[in-house]
Amino acid sequence: MASASASTPSFDRFKPAARVAGQKQDVWTIVNEAATASPVQPIVNMGQGFFGYNPPKYVTDAAKAALDRVDCNQYSPTRGRPRLKKAIADAYSPFFGKTLNPETEVTITTGANEGMLSAFMGFLEQDDEVILFEPFFDQYISNIQMAGATIRYAPLQPPDHGSIRTSSAADWTIDMAALEKLINPRTKMIVLNTPHNPVGKVFSKSELQAIGDLCVKHGIIILSDEVYDRLYYVPFTRIATISPQIAAQTLTVGSAGKNFYATGWRVGWLIGPENLIKYVAAAHTRICFSSVSPLQEAAAVGFEKADEEGFWEQSKNEMQGKMKRFCEVFDELGLPYSDPEGGYFVLANLSKVNLPEDYDFPPHVAERPRDFKLSWFLIMELGVAAIPPTEFYTEENMHLAENYLRFAVCKEDDVLEKAKERLRGLRKFM
Amino acid sequence: MASASASTPSFDRFKPAARVAGQKQDVWTIVNEAATASPVQPIVNMGQGFFGYNPPKYVTDAAKAALDRVDCNQYSPTRGRPRLKKAIADAYSPFFGKTLNPETEVTITTGANEGMLSAFMGFLEQDDEVILFEPFFDQYISNIQMAGATIRYAPLQPPDHGSIRTSSAADWTIDMAALEKLINPRTKMIVLNTPHNPVGKVFSKSELQAIGDLCVKHGIIILSDEVYDRLYYVPFTRIATISPQIAAQTLTVGSAGKNFYATGWRVGWLIGPENLIKYVAAAHTRICFSSVSPLQEAAAVGFEKADEEGFWEQSKNEMQGKMKRFCEVFDELGLPYSDPEGGYFVLANLSKVNLPEDYDFPPHVAERPRDFKLSWFLIMELGVAAIPPTEFYTEENMHLAENYLRFAVCKEDDVLEKAKERLRGLRKFM
Repeated sequence: MASASASTPSFDRFKPAARVAGQKQDVWTIVNEAATASPVQPIVNMGQGFFGYNPPKYVTDAAKAALDRVDCNQYSPTRGRPRLKKAIADAYSPFFGKTLNPETEVTITTGANEGMLSAFMGFLEQDDEVILFEPFFDQYISNIQMAGATIRYAPLQPPDHGSIRTSSAADWTIDMAALEKLINPRTKMIVLNTPHNPVGKVFSKSELQAIGDLCVKHGIIILSDEVYDRLYYVPFTRIATISPQIAAQTLTVGSAGKNFYATGWRVGWLIGPENLIKYVAAAHTRICFSSVSPLQEAAAVGFEKADEEGFWEQSKNEMQGKMKRFCEVFDELGLPYSDPEGGYFVLANLSKVNLPEDYDFPPHVAERPRDFKLSWFLIMELGVAAIPPTEFYTEENMHLAENYLRFAVCKEDDVLEKAKERLRGLRKFM
Repeated sequence: MASASASTPSFDRFKPAARVAGQKQDVWTIVNEAATASPVQPIVNMGQGFFGYNPPKYVTDAAKAALDRVDCNQYSPTRGRPRLKKAIADAYSPFFGKTLNPETEVTITTGANEGMLSAFMGFLEQDDEVILFEPFFDQYISNIQMAGATIRYAPLQPPDHGSIRTSSAADWTIDMAALEKLINPRTKMIVLNTPHNPVGKVFSKSELQAIGDLCVKHGIIILSDEVYDRLYYVPFTRIATISPQIAAQTLTVGSAGKNFYATGWRVGWLIGPENLIKYVAAAHTRICFSSVSPLQEAAAVGFEKADEEGFWEQSKNEMQGKMKRFCEVFDELGLPYSDPEGGYFVLANLSKVNLPEDYDFPPHVAERPRDFKLSWFLIMELGVAAIPPTEFYTEENMHLAENYLRFAVCKEDDVLEKAKERLRGLRKFM
């Protein structure tokens, strides 16, 4: 049979929907293609936030056991397997200061990503508005746009001294007056992310109180993305726990992939009041029908055993150790960074790095802000991949982050040491 | 801490989006609640199409092996793991009569369901129209509406003698003139499903040729849901193989869950020309980011080994055997059915069953067509669950199916025998 392309008809009628058409090349594609093209191989990949090691053995063992059970290989109930909903309700009830009802206040989603989409699809209509902080996780944008809503942006203000000296990620601050000015009668939701990707900021209790009060005053649904909720190096407050009023309008998002080192498992959840959760679950049913069954069962076992195994403490301590180990290289080089309060990303400020003036950047990098050039340069010259954070900004506010790069430290220690060794090569460009 | 509900603020502002609000109770919930409430326990569940047995051991073994590999537990590439894309390209190239490019002509999705949604999201805008055949798989409706498009319906015409005698599912026919009348300049897509759920019809080559010609003539994208593609009992034609012109505008949907007896795995895919597939993949990335990693690897091994294991032949023969075994009870009872040409559903016609006039149906069943009453009655009186197919119809055409029930035969033989034994109890109502 002849190849189809020989007689392809006019494709005018087959044009894509605006929501997927004509997007510029995304950061992941640019970084991956650069990594493949780099003369330094293999690349040390500190870019995407996947783990360089496996989930705990009792979790993968539970997944293997589930694969032998007929019911665990077939459709999960659309809202999730009962055992996982119960395990999550049991694990989170102490944090929330009340007994969560697994049947009505927890719903399972296909990763936190599809969980956020389900929340947006459950509540947003054409003329609604959503407030996001900048920098934002890039998927939020397309997810909100898919629901037809409009986004208003509140930039986190980086520290003035960010290019001069290292300081806490806490120094990225919220301008509360500017935030309140974004609110209007169309404002339906606000998205929080704490611990924050990529800043590493853990929103303080007083910041959350102020945001929560604003949302109660104006009747705004709070969608709190807390996927890094077990990785905090300062006290961590969940906004839903601040007051019953705030809890009544808050959806909290979690991720088994982030919690148990398995970003490829696609098991997430939302916790919230019944009258919000039911519409998230309804949207999820229409998007994915149900989520992956055997890995839900494994995540349930993870939650059941994590406390007795001392897993959460160990997980936090190990990640903090990795962060400390990796950031030493920036101290050595005299490159300032935002010292993370949580999560596994660190933003380093590379304004002291001088990119050769005649360096041959490809056009799709040359046209982007300086952080894209820094990323390309590090991949090509040193063989270390990191993510340019202006991808997580609107055009207007990109300048705030154009000297930063985001490094993911959720890697084996020898990978971190290799990255450090290579990054020392920056010295000759400073 | 006090319960949140004590001081819940006005929830006017927290109303759900229209796309999830105010839907009537779905058939799965009604049937499941009835099954729980039935005095006959345990229920024999012939309702939902999940398998009553496990995937082949080499497939679950491959999943277990993947769980020990770091890369298999982390994010898959958004378009799918290379090994699975290659295994699918290799498996389907012979059917498609050309060498499929795994990088450009195959994309992996989170089950066929999210694959269909990705196709709709990739191409449909507000004023576009989609043609569906009735009966339809219920998820199509919400998926298309989520993309903002409008649906036009073309009912399959059941055989006139359907209440009198058993005949082939082929006797559900397409009125081609009526179909063409639905087409207008806004028609962007048509959805096919072959082998068809719930009718069991395998669209003939001449039917597909006629539909394909219409789509080429009018420039309509064909989305062919072929998730039961390994279960056909008459010759099976894939519409994409009819001509290069048709192939150039066809997206074919498949499912590892249906192929390998693992409906809870959520691994699906689309095959099609590069200029269509790329927008499906773009939409998928925005919906789910990536799909479950270790089970993609297992599905890859499934495709690599299925031929040498003789799995496809065995799978088809076993399912046809189950169909034959189960349908014997309808022959015994003199109840006509549509003899399936493929898939694992059978529509039995129960117009000969007399429901007691004073039977106490709950209001949410009493208000629905007769098939909902038949379903309720079988669950309560006989302890057998089956699905009322008018759920898969618009109001206008429900009458076509109000005497039918859908039974899923993808169950262990002893379950089928138990169902038959119980269904013999219908005799006293005939």
